[in-house]
Amino acid sequence: MLETPVIVVNFKLYEQASGKNGLNLAKIIDTVSKETGASIAVAVNPLDFKMIKNSVDMPVFLQHVDAVEFGAKTGRINVELAKEHGIDGILINHSERRMTIADIEYLVHRAKIVGVNTIVCTNNAKVSAAIAALSPDFIAMEPPELIGGDVSVSRARPEAITETIKIVNSVNPVPVLVGAGVKTGDDVKKAIELGAKGVLIASGIAKANDPRKAIIDLVQGLM
Amino acid sequence: MLETPVIVVNFKLYEQASGKNGLNLAKIIDTVSKETGASIAVAVNPLDFKMIKNSVDMPVFLQHVDAVEFGAKTGRINVELAKEHGIDGILINHSERRMTIADIEYLVHRAKIVGVNTIVCTNNAKVSAAIAALSPDFIAMEPPELIGGDVSVSRARPEAITETIKIVNSVNPVPVLVGAGVKTGDDVKKAIELGAKGVLIASGIAKANDPRKAIIDLVQGLM
Amino acid sequence: MLETPVIVVNFKLYEQASGKNGLNLAKIIDTVSKETGASIAVAVNPLDFKMIKNSVDMPVFLQHVDAVEFGAKTGRINVELAKEHGIDGILINHSERRMTIADIEYLVHRAKIVGVNTIVCTNNAKVSAAIAALSPDFIAMEPPELIGGDVSVSRARPEAITETIKIVNSVNPVPVLVGAGVKTGDDVKKAIELGAKGVLIASGIAKANDPRKAIIDLVQGLM
Amino acid sequence: MLETPVIVVNFKLYEQASGKNGLNLAKIIDTVSKETGASIAVAVNPLDFKMIKNSVDMPVFLQHVDAVEFGAKTGRINVELAKEHGIDGILINHSERRMTIADIEYLVHRAKIVGVNTIVCTNNAKVSAAIAALSPDFIAMEPPELIGGDVSVSRARPEAITETIKIVNSVNPVPVLVGAGVKTGDDVKKAIELGAKGVLIASGIAKANDPRKAIIDLVQGLM
Repeated sequence: MLETPVIVVNFKLYEQASGKNGLNLAKIIDTVSKETGASIAVAVNPLDFKMIKNSVDMPVFLQHVDAVEFGAKTGRINVELAKEHGIDGILINHSERRMTIADIEYLVHRAKIVGVNTIVCTNNAKVSAAIAALSPDFIAMEPPELIGGDVSVSRARPEAITETIKIVNSVNPVPVLVGAGVKTGDDVKKAIELGAKGVLIASGIAKANDPRKAIIDLVQGLM
Repeated sequence: MLETPVIVVNFKLYEQASGKNGLNLAKIIDTVSKETGASIAVAVNPLDFKMIKNSVDMPVFLQHVDAVEFGAKTGRINVELAKEHGIDGILINHSERRMTIADIEYLVHRAKIVGVNTIVCTNNAKVSAAIAALSPDFIAMEPPELIGGDVSVSRARPEAITETIKIVNSVNPVPVLVGAGVKTGDDVKKAIELGAKGVLIASGIAKANDPRKAIIDLVQGLM
Repeated sequence: MLETPVIVVNFKLYEQASGKNGLNLAKIIDTVSKETGASIAVAVNPLDFKMIKNSVDMPVFLQHVDAVEFGAKTGRINVELAKEHGIDGILINHSERRMTIADIEYLVHRAKIVGVNTIVCTNNAKVSAAIAALSPDFIAMEPPELIGGDVSVSRARPEAITETIKIVNSVNPVPVLVGAGVKTGDDVKKAIELGAKGVLIASGIAKANDPRKAIIDLVQGLM
Repeated sequence: MLETPVIVVNFKLYEQASGKNGLNLAKIIDTVSKETGASIAVAVNPLDFKMIKNSVDMPVFLQHVDAVEFGAKTGRINVELAKEHGIDGILINHSERRMTIADIEYLVHRAKIVGVNTIVCTNNAKVSAAIAALSPDFIAMEPPELIGGDVSVSRARPEAITETIKIVNSVNPVPVLVGAGVKTGDDVKKAIELGAKGVLIASGIAKANDPRKAIIDLVQGLM
């Protein structure tokens, strides 16, 4: 299980965070994690996974795995294979890779069996409540209108965070991460004050001019 | 709101239940509903909808609408347009037409606003609990391994029904319909004894040699 | 078969072109078609189809049908059912409703058998050549970067039209319609001068302040 | 470019061909390729790719890559990243991972630019002709009704192969591989006599009791 509060960095398929660039970025983040003791995890693509996993000590997630069993499934990977490769966790249902509710339930269930962390992304408080009933390890709530933008949800709509945490707790107290527009240590700090157990961030690190500086700034918000 | 206990007949795209065949089947079912006083609704495709709606008094649902607003959405229909055409309700997330959790939440929300009934299909108890958090009007639980088969869930796995109702109630007491393999009045009776508020049925009526006899038999189970 | 040159108006799910608004718009377009003798067809959603088909004399298309046979296909419609309802043709593979190549081939094949016109949308010259091998009735080439915009392809990239027509003819001489950004009679005229057999238009009519004026202007370009 | 005639082995997500099992299978196949001089390639999942690529000399393909550019594409990989990791080629549009025609065209185009082989799967002669217009390196024709079965297309429907090759050549002479049900060296021999440039095989090798024996038998058919 990830230590909280946690910063999860989604590398997406940003050119600055894929292939050798992704490896370099992962090493920078891992170093900051060690220097500061901050709990940080990264979510990478399956081609880069092994290379990055072998070079860092922090947890490495996949950004997606398919909700399938072994079999005649050309072009798919599953959580059992990911586990064999040493995966620490999976992002599920990111806004750029939505899944059916049946598939989300299947993945959370299988991940628990094989011992892999799950973070299920959601888009609002109601959907977060629904996902809470499935008992993933984390819910990452990202209002779609703020994703990729410059305003963090903790700043723009703090009530979206508190409402989400409240309704999630009424169903099942799954820890909530906050995503969408998180950029600075202040954003992180605000999110945690509002009750979040961490943040899910992407472009703020992956596309930063100085990723080391950006991740150090974020980490300040955890302290 | 549908009166319960209710029988919902999904016409799917069965040849025996589409076009003129669908209209005939709908009239047979509507007649039985009137003769017996049983609460019955049908779910039809959008091309047949108006023709059937104009010919019966029972509620007529659509089998699917898209989770979109008006706009540049070629080949889509939405709940607002369906409402303008006089729709009574929508099936959402049928196993043959799965949706993302974000889209299910959107549809349930929009349907409430425009005043249209919602039945969200699920595949097991956990997923039913998740959907309960979205407060649809009904949840129709259909174990996928029993769909289209000859053994009803109320017979093959009664504990699947009681477990679903229990876990749904622990989140939000949404009435549960039972689907998959329901064929006879005895199946209906058993489902209702187990706590279900009705059944969702398809091939048992649509593909019956004598649909009138089949629906009358089902109705016996409601009494 | 549609008479050429033809103007095909895609109503999409624009609020101004759906439900009663869609019926009114269809009547306006039908009147212009009769007054001018211009060949015009409209593509509508399946809920509005019958209402519009019953009120106009011009050909009425569906914007999409699914590539499925009759059977257990909840939430789907097929070309056989559409034909029973009197459909004149179908749009296939619109950029807002892309299909697999296997499904496109299936639909074109089935539509030919039941006697329904097909217009397959494409996004560039190469894809148009591929589709030509399937022998649909028409190919509508719409560069995605111009869809919904204010600049017509015939103006912005006339060579895209000539190149498409040339490569299509080298495979199979399927008539080509031009879409994306068509707004005025001049755009239509230019497209036809370049070798197109008509245009596919949406927002230019559906969202016009004065649709009658807009369609009359377009028709001038045919003459 | 692959040497022809070629045997392409699709590992799918068979448990016998994934993870360490996949590595072992790849080594067996690579050894047979070296011993016999036969041209053989394998198509693997992205998690296993690097491990297998580093252990064999034969070409290693991915079973699927997404038709996306670098950017905010969580859970996707693209051909540019695959190339950086040393990929030799990609399977495109397998029946278990269908794509839109626009995406197939994009992938074939990008693969050519970065220098990666492409095999596009198709389901019949007409679709093969359409794909030929996109100029991939190979077309693998697999009648869906024969996939995973015990009867090879070269035996059950030899005319499907000759018809496909003929219509493909009439558009663009792309070499054709034959898939679906290929099991034995005789099947391979027959396919090549009919004009195919090789075969695409999956369960016949991946699920064989003795994969070494199975691949050796296939190779006999090439000679």
